[in-house]
Amino acid sequence: MSIKLTILGFNSAVPTANSYPTSQLLNIEERYFLIDCGEGTQVQLRRSKAKFNRINHIFISHLHGDHVFGLIGLISTLQLLGRDTPLNIYGPLGIKEFILNQLKFTESVCSFELAFHELTGKKSVLVYEDNLIEVYTIPLNHRVYTNGYLFREKPKARRLNMDAIAEFNEIEICDYQNIKNGKDVVLESGQVIENSYLTFDPHKSLSYAFCSDTKYKPDIVPIIQNVDLLYHESTFLHELKDLALYTGHSTAKEAGMIAKQANVGQLILGHFSNRYHDYDILLKEAQAEFPNTILPKILGTIKIKS
Amino acid sequence: MSIKLTILGFNSAVPTANSYPTSQLLNIEERYFLIDCGEGTQVQLRRSKAKFNRINHIFISHLHGDHVFGLIGLISTLQLLGRDTPLNIYGPLGIKEFILNQLKFTESVCSFELAFHELTGKKSVLVYEDNLIEVYTIPLNHRVYTNGYLFREKPKARRLNMDAIAEFNEIEICDYQNIKNGKDVVLESGQVIENSYLTFDPHKSLSYAFCSDTKYKPDIVPIIQNVDLLYHESTFLHELKDLALYTGHSTAKEAGMIAKQANVGQLILGHFSNRYHDYDILLKEAQAEFPNTILPKILGTIKIKS
Repeated sequence: MSIKLTILGFNSAVPTANSYPTSQLLNIEERYFLIDCGEGTQVQLRRSKAKFNRINHIFISHLHGDHVFGLIGLISTLQLLGRDTPLNIYGPLGIKEFILNQLKFTESVCSFELAFHELTGKKSVLVYEDNLIEVYTIPLNHRVYTNGYLFREKPKARRLNMDAIAEFNEIEICDYQNIKNGKDVVLESGQVIENSYLTFDPHKSLSYAFCSDTKYKPDIVPIIQNVDLLYHESTFLHELKDLALYTGHSTAKEAGMIAKQANVGQLILGHFSNRYHDYDILLKEAQAEFPNTILPKILGTIKIKS
Repeated sequence: MSIKLTILGFNSAVPTANSYPTSQLLNIEERYFLIDCGEGTQVQLRRSKAKFNRINHIFISHLHGDHVFGLIGLISTLQLLGRDTPLNIYGPLGIKEFILNQLKFTESVCSFELAFHELTGKKSVLVYEDNLIEVYTIPLNHRVYTNGYLFREKPKARRLNMDAIAEFNEIEICDYQNIKNGKDVVLESGQVIENSYLTFDPHKSLSYAFCSDTKYKPDIVPIIQNVDLLYHESTFLHELKDLALYTGHSTAKEAGMIAKQANVGQLILGHFSNRYHDYDILLKEAQAEFPNTILPKILGTIKIKS
């Protein structure tokens, strides 16, 4: 049981020869979710060796170029590669027209369904769900309408203690699902065998929260409480907190404060201003608030295991 | 006197980890012209060490993604870098709305003037002119409305033969411009000194023609006759000539045939289908028609001197 987060790009504003705008690939139980899609994301996906035709859901935080200019190129490439399965795109209201306009002007006919899920709400809502995973929005506070996304494994079934079960001939395979679901067993004699005797606790449900771009916004803390991994933007050092506020960004200190308040497992920073070449000063500032903080690495993968 | 052509990308269709869609930077006498702008062009410009804020004119052949998806990112970056001089964009009708729509949805306000020059004609026309250079369209035949571009230095002034001039005390500096312009000199005695005695022939005016994407179209030959350098797309080998015709592309053989008919100085191939990994087979096919053919190299610069 693991979540793998691959950092495709983590820089803000403008791509350069060796820096890439925001994009991340999240792999939860072989489901692939793409988060943000700055220019060049499709090339970074290739470099990461990801099977990117297996991405069925793309989550866009906001419609600024460094988070979305790579989306039309990725869609076009998927089309040229012959994709025929639907692609779901979650993002702010307007993203559908933004993409369809580009397809129209380039006279492109998409060979697969583009299913847009446009967001307008200011409260956290469930936007995706399958049998294993839920994805919620995390309303952020940037210059334009922006959401982070919370990826959370659903609670898992309890695990059978086969040694304990073997003590009771009456318990059959057809009873296992009920036991996994936490039910006690009542024997023919009327004796009740408590579920806790027959099972182990389930594997932990893992969670990841992506928060970019945003001002310091402590009211997201209840939404991301106890997540295993938090990506929080930290565009500036705290000495530039006024600039951060003005531009709708956070400082490394503020990212650390959010991580601490939310009691997360680990914090990963990103979206650094191009003025910084040595990211260690941002790391140290965040670590003063929340020690288990790390820096992103291009094409690096962070694994969380239960 | 030279023209420098830097190849930023020369692949067709989809960018990969090590291949880049069409874009070229042309430097004529320190004027910088960008030709086509596939996704990632701004990063290739950085890698080429070009002073890309000095690009004032961008020529787009057609509105297919591999030729235009990088334009919005480049414009956004120029804006973030504080550009304040106008940027001229030449391309098919629709390019203005295509770009302005993307700016609108990303709530971007351009800090500099975007001057669009939208093209609809089917004949070669002059689209740009300054004191040194003229640029003409080259109407091509692709699946959508497409133009190549011909860059041509204007005829240059004749060069003074100072030794010959020194023989005549009467000839003064104020006469030089007339002599450079080809006028004879009439001395006070009435003696006519022929211009050809006082001058050398001018430096050759250089020219470059960019032709992508197009079916084999021999009626472009009169437009590109005798150019020093021709870039002509060669998406396929001639064994796939039917596919080339169907998709609106040329074969390497056809590129060589055009170069031969137009009596160009040198032919450079490009826009290769991703099915080819060894471009030498395309090169050899074109060279059989036109020996002075070369392959493009990523970030390589071809110089033409007079």
